Amino acid sequence: MGKVGKSSYLFHNVYIKSFASVVGPKEYNGPLGSYFDKHYDSLLIDGEKSFEKSEIAYLKSSINICLSKANLNDNDINIIFCGDLNNQIAISSYAMRDLNIPYVGIFAACATATLGIINSAFYLENNGLYALSCTSSHNCTAERQFRYPNEYGTQRSCTYTSTVTGASSILLTNIKTNLIIRRATIGKVVDGKFKDSQDMGRAMAPACYHTIKRHMLDFNLSINEYDKIFTGDLSTYGSNLLIDLFKEDGIDITSKHEDCGKMIYELNCDDVTSGGSGCGCIGVVLSGYILNKLLSGELNKVLVLATGALMNPIMLAQKDTIPAICHAISIEVIK
Amino acid sequence: MGKVGKSSYLFHNVYIKSFASVVGPKEYNGPLGSYFDKHYDSLLIDGEKSFEKSEIAYLKSSINICLSKANLNDNDINIIFCGDLNNQIAISSYAMRDLNIPYVGIFAACATATLGIINSAFYLENNGLYALSCTSSHNCTAERQFRYPNEYGTQRSCTYTSTVTGASSILLTNIKTNLIIRRATIGKVVDGKFKDSQDMGRAMAPACYHTIKRHMLDFNLSINEYDKIFTGDLSTYGSNLLIDLFKEDGIDITSKHEDCGKMIYELNCDDVTSGGSGCGCIGVVLSGYILNKLLSGELNKVLVLATGALMNPIMLAQKDTIPAICHAISIEVIK
Repeated sequence: MGKVGKSSYLFHNVYIKSFASVVGPKEYNGPLGSYFDKHYDSLLIDGEKSFEKSEIAYLKSSINICLSKANLNDNDINIIFCGDLNNQIAISSYAMRDLNIPYVGIFAACATATLGIINSAFYLENNGLYALSCTSSHNCTAERQFRYPNEYGTQRSCTYTSTVTGASSILLTNIKTNLIIRRATIGKVVDGKFKDSQDMGRAMAPACYHTIKRHMLDFNLSINEYDKIFTGDLSTYGSNLLIDLFKEDGIDITSKHEDCGKMIYELNCDDVTSGGSGCGCIGVVLSGYILNKLLSGELNKVLVLATGALMNPIMLAQKDTIPAICHAISIEVIK
Repeated sequence: MGKVGKSSYLFHNVYIKSFASVVGPKEYNGPLGSYFDKHYDSLLIDGEKSFEKSEIAYLKSSINICLSKANLNDNDINIIFCGDLNNQIAISSYAMRDLNIPYVGIFAACATATLGIINSAFYLENNGLYALSCTSSHNCTAERQFRYPNEYGTQRSCTYTSTVTGASSILLTNIKTNLIIRRATIGKVVDGKFKDSQDMGRAMAPACYHTIKRHMLDFNLSINEYDKIFTGDLSTYGSNLLIDLFKEDGIDITSKHEDCGKMIYELNCDDVTSGGSGCGCIGVVLSGYILNKLLSGELNKVLVLATGALMNPIMLAQKDTIPAICHAISIEVIK
């Protein structure tokens, strides 16, 4: 492994062993429905009475599928990096009660999906055999916490994104497989001075722009290095802002760029409005769609950028702005 | 670096370069007051109108002092691991807006103090020169969030611990100094089935017991390996439970054990009751008292165990229990 430039790292021995995605009904009925390993028809599952406990069940389901695909159990895993959107990342911590795995709680809002993989990579270059990187979100736990309970029927603005109900687990190893984590760039906090909690996409676009630029600068690459550049979750509005920011540099990213938030739902202004969001959004698009497209040979080398809005409702009530962060990894197929 | 046993690690190149502690008035007036680098006379500081923004100012102050002691600035630092008790670790993320450092948000409640050091150690064995590990807590942000606003004047039980107002920063490096991080053990989530948010000490004691046992087993050590075993923050009640758990194994830890929560305040039943708590408690006792005692030669080899209660108020309202975790590091003086 080697440090490259200000914020980036090149890995030589970090591979993906298995991965799993579990989603709720709306995600299963979306354009990517057939890519997910498992879906539930309800937001309350496994007989649980609360949305929080159902989110824990979604997360545990994705971990179980991921481990069983690798023919391993929790005792085989050396470390788990896990985080979610709930206060005190309670979903992750409560899910860990039943697993005999040393646990590192991480938080980067929706950027948790790639941050867990980067931390796993730092770990695996020297230690152990297996690291799990997991994350989840749930529409009913997140909407209540960050905006309003769904039951209020609050009117949503057109920039609004809907929190994905889903969980993602990715098992990383230093034993060679066909999928390698090659490069990573750790983001810094970037504050674009946005204040609207119904427009997270645009709030995160400047951080995403900063991390892509940093990645290209540190590795001396152009965007043509990658088949696709996946962001998540910028929404239609945030994606357009990202495209505009690159246009100012004379770079057209439109042929390379896809946003996981735009991919997971059919977009319309009544329900989903401008896309999906939440740790689970880029999580399940990565462990459902992107990794399968790499395995099938339809993609060969991709950059994945998870973006997180780092505010909480108290800071917004105090009239502060929404800082954001974006962490990048590249994934390649090796023959 | 090498993995040792199920959950532990031996480091060869991870040193402490500088450290800083900043506390509020109650901590300065306590038994350890003279050890801290800086104190403020108020809980609202730097002209800020909210407790959250004051906690951000405490945290930034500790980072600035830590960097200035090392004659470095933020541009010299390769990575920062930071977390706090606020929802979405907002204090850490907002403090990062002014720093040009790639940022990894972590959460382990009060166990964040050692988790940041362990993550820094994983990082530094291969990469970069400097990693910062920082944490903070504030009495008025935490009490409101986890129990009741102080202004309510709620009656406190005798098991209650008072959240410390303070921030701690520790700069780690792979360039040799006199203080080495030698061993680490990453905890797993342990749920002792406690439910009382006014008795976090006893809720965390089983996790602490588990991590000490794991550490001794992985490295084949007895407690006599260390001059002192510092826990934080178990309170008087949690400390007694920890001592009792070891008594059942026929091991008397009383001559080795100190609890940071019991050390930071004069204990009495009217105000502080059974001790201090919060990320900042073991944080400032470590970066104020313990590291100075190592530098002065009064201690030579210590085990530091930060313990975290991983619940949030929503999980307790749903009648769930309080899971806990404990992460350990050993610090040694080298000549």
